[in-house]
Amino acid sequence: MPTIVVEVMPKPEILDPQGKAIANALPHLGFTGFSSVRQGKRFELTVDGEVTEELLESARTAAAEMLSNPVIEDVVSVTVAEDL
Amino acid sequence: MPTIVVEVMPKPEILDPQGKAIANALPHLGFTGFSSVRQGKRFELTVDGEVTEELLESARTAAAEMLSNPVIEDVVSVTVAEDL
Repeated sequence: MPTIVVEVMPKPEILDPQGKAIANALPHLGFTGFSSVRQGKRFELTVDGEVTEELLESARTAAAEMLSNPVIEDVVSVTVAEDL
Repeated sequence: MPTIVVEVMPKPEILDPQGKAIANALPHLGFTGFSSVRQGKRFELTVDGEVTEELLESARTAAAEMLSNPVIEDVVSVTVAEDL
């Protein structure tokens, strides 16, 4: 079934305490070489039937208005994945 | 700065109440044509310097052992994004 993948990340100027906590924990667990971590969200919207341009546009609007908070988050990408 | 992107999703057999809530809300907001929604996580690990094979392997291990809960989540991908 075709799936539309929406990726959302906190805006660069917004503090990301979860990402910060992960970045601080990584070296303690032996994972070095990473300077910072940011945590965002990934949504898979399953589509019944074909992904039309209209449906993709609807997904883009949903990503901007509902799946993300435009004050603190950016929609990184809205892409079609056929083989999930 | 090169960035390693880690994507994590709930396993297909695991209930995803957040995704379910979104799927239920979409039609009420006028977004139709989506049959289901799953919500996962997206991590950006910023790397100081070059992404070596060793560092990528380290990121894969961190993804499997720390960024995801292997009981309920799958690591969907660990990829290098040069231009974030």
